[in-house]
Amino acid sequence: MPAYDYDLFVIGGGSGGVRAARVAASLGKRVAIAEEYRFGGTCVIRGCVPKKLFVYASQFPEHFEDAKGFGWSVGESRFDWSKLMAAKDKEIERLEGLYQTNAGKAGAETITDRAVLEGPHEIRLVGSGRTVTADKILIATGGRPNRFPAMPGAEHCITSEEAFHLPELPKRIAVLGGGYIAVEFANIFHGLGVETVLVYRGKEILQGFDDDLRHELHEAMERKGLRVHCCDTFEKVEMRGDGTLAATCKSGEVMIVDQVMLAIGRTANTENLGCEKAGVELDERGAVIVDEHSRTSAENIYAIGDVTHRVQLTPVAIHEAMCLIDTLYRDKPTSPDYGAIATAVFSQPELGVVGLSEQEAAKRFADVEIYRASFRPMKATLSGRSERMLMKLVVDGESRRVLGAHVLGADAGELAQVLAIAVKAELTKDQFDATMAVHPTAAEELVTMYQPSYRLKDGNRV
Amino acid sequence: MPAYDYDLFVIGGGSGGVRAARVAASLGKRVAIAEEYRFGGTCVIRGCVPKKLFVYASQFPEHFEDAKGFGWSVGESRFDWSKLMAAKDKEIERLEGLYQTNAGKAGAETITDRAVLEGPHEIRLVGSGRTVTADKILIATGGRPNRFPAMPGAEHCITSEEAFHLPELPKRIAVLGGGYIAVEFANIFHGLGVETVLVYRGKEILQGFDDDLRHELHEAMERKGLRVHCCDTFEKVEMRGDGTLAATCKSGEVMIVDQVMLAIGRTANTENLGCEKAGVELDERGAVIVDEHSRTSAENIYAIGDVTHRVQLTPVAIHEAMCLIDTLYRDKPTSPDYGAIATAVFSQPELGVVGLSEQEAAKRFADVEIYRASFRPMKATLSGRSERMLMKLVVDGESRRVLGAHVLGADAGELAQVLAIAVKAELTKDQFDATMAVHPTAAEELVTMYQPSYRLKDGNRV
Repeated sequence: MPAYDYDLFVIGGGSGGVRAARVAASLGKRVAIAEEYRFGGTCVIRGCVPKKLFVYASQFPEHFEDAKGFGWSVGESRFDWSKLMAAKDKEIERLEGLYQTNAGKAGAETITDRAVLEGPHEIRLVGSGRTVTADKILIATGGRPNRFPAMPGAEHCITSEEAFHLPELPKRIAVLGGGYIAVEFANIFHGLGVETVLVYRGKEILQGFDDDLRHELHEAMERKGLRVHCCDTFEKVEMRGDGTLAATCKSGEVMIVDQVMLAIGRTANTENLGCEKAGVELDERGAVIVDEHSRTSAENIYAIGDVTHRVQLTPVAIHEAMCLIDTLYRDKPTSPDYGAIATAVFSQPELGVVGLSEQEAAKRFADVEIYRASFRPMKATLSGRSERMLMKLVVDGESRRVLGAHVLGADAGELAQVLAIAVKAELTKDQFDATMAVHPTAAEELVTMYQPSYRLKDGNRV
Repeated sequence: MPAYDYDLFVIGGGSGGVRAARVAASLGKRVAIAEEYRFGGTCVIRGCVPKKLFVYASQFPEHFEDAKGFGWSVGESRFDWSKLMAAKDKEIERLEGLYQTNAGKAGAETITDRAVLEGPHEIRLVGSGRTVTADKILIATGGRPNRFPAMPGAEHCITSEEAFHLPELPKRIAVLGGGYIAVEFANIFHGLGVETVLVYRGKEILQGFDDDLRHELHEAMERKGLRVHCCDTFEKVEMRGDGTLAATCKSGEVMIVDQVMLAIGRTANTENLGCEKAGVELDERGAVIVDEHSRTSAENIYAIGDVTHRVQLTPVAIHEAMCLIDTLYRDKPTSPDYGAIATAVFSQPELGVVGLSEQEAAKRFADVEIYRASFRPMKATLSGRSERMLMKLVVDGESRRVLGAHVLGADAGELAQVLAIAVKAELTKDQFDATMAVHPTAAEELVTMYQPSYRLKDGNRV
């Protein structure tokens, strides 16, 4: 009889947890996976997937407007938030089912219950009261939005989680934050006709991205009529007699809105998880500390995904799961590879990047070449839309390697995905240049920028 | 005094000719470029550019339909062909001006006249009657649609050239041909609400492309209600009393339509060009014969672009121009590189490819792995559109090199452009696999197909 009930017990049914459970089970391991809320995790239930569906919904008004320049007269359009909600919920439910079914099909036991650690090998299922044991435990509990409890009136605010379930679309909204979630939701609400203001304490939205693109996106959002208010934050939010909210900025400005959405970072889901009972150490922000093989301070307990505060992206969690399986069950210790991770911000216009920003490259390389193209996309010539597309390649002048590729404009996320293959493979600018253009596309700019727009020597533009 | 009026005389103001003239002039050469019709050539005036604008116009009805699934009610829409025409004409005029101005700015003399060869160094300008001389001559006269003169009633038919200037949108159209021009126009007309039939003598549209994608596109077009009628052709077209046309197929079927568009190939513009007077030999189809440095049988006369019947694409003509400049004026003899040219068909869904099809790879490689993903794009889950996206990687099992990448679906042209960088650089499947996904995108499928769908050994599926 085996010493433990399971070879592997996975806590958390999100992208990382399900992948690990599924593959471990398919290798013949005795696996259970517990999820307290809904299988699919943040990505499927209240993240990437419903967000992208909202993005699509919010893009239609621009299609309607653009059509005019191409000879179309379009009748008046109306938007029904509840219809979008119902359609979205149905799709999410379908995906949730798929996630759970797939884990089960592979032979993993799926448990809908909250699981907490009772010891290094013991897991208690809170709902049923049952305690089970496992040789190895994987913490994949993800994260949740920070609710800014220090701010008076935080209880009147929503986060992305509630944004996916609002009973009605607000007329006016203030979104607090400057990261990709704040930016994406501000664009979604604006696109759906909501009077939107984005408030961010930093100097410019999307810290960490290339400054050029941050600035261009900011400008593009403002041109659409979406107010972007930087260098400020909310000091308090008060509910008024008529049910609207008054959000008072540090600057003194008071914003009267129907909803305030907080998107000021995410917190690891480790509260009341029993980490201390199992010897799993957390960092000062509550995230599980792991080594390069995703092992926690408890030798048989591992953690992957958002709960570890490494790179908080679905494909990274999945990659960490696959590396862990190699390490644990394929006798091939593998560390996750965090190099050249492409990412997209589904703002409007969209932003897609891979590799180093100009600013990062300037710090790390003595001789940097910047190839930059800013142009009006062909569709805009007839639609009259003022949006420009920005593409930028950051090149090491010495090795000629393309260190970073940055796109702002339609399909930037799709482009970044494919650019990532080239950047990850450390291709040179000459290899980009040797590529024949496809005409007419926007992406052809990426292979026809033959002369650097400018250079940086030892970090200074020359 | 120089022996000739010009160092270089370029006949034809299309993409290839203008590029050659512009760069030669910028290198200090005395250059003239003559264009008999409009600067910009096929691409700008009656090819790629207006075609793509039409494609955009024809996509709006699908946007209007898709919107419903996302909670939008859209009022009735009407399309005004003359408005599209006017907008398109204005944009083309702008681009035409840019082409001519840019050549002039670089120092080339731009001549709006028909130029013909009078001898190896003599060019006669037909309009003015003037004869000039040049050290070197570049033939870049392009091509034009084949008008099928052998078919009775061909005079009642239009080609792509007239399609760009139709006074009104037909109610019904038959497009003859199976190449990309035929397919693109059939999709444009269908998208704009025209009852469209595509008639092609071959077994399947888009010969030369991957069979899988050809078939999928064919099916997708049919599902939209665009009739694709293969293995047949027109024997005659008759004008009927009411002004409509009766196109009689070889099969006996008679199609009653308002317009018949011929898209059955293109002919090099070499008629009455004086090639025989200059010693420039043509092939049996009338194209100028050139060597690997674009030199004709006359030692000081060169030819690039569509007039040479090599690869008839704008970027290729431009590439040939740049190679020629290197050869003639930079002391660096350079042959055009025709390897891994990506290309797109702006059908609906779009098709984008680079490198070898499965069928080509099977002929050339003993061990071929096919990675294939067919899936419903995320947008379609709410729009309800039945379209599927198809992605396919063709891999050499021995070297692991990605030989070909094929995409059918939204943005396929953009994706093909970036995929071309990777395929041209001869990256391996492992390098694709090492790339982190960007979620949620369609392109992430390209880096997450870990297991081959099937293999081909010595050309046979195993």
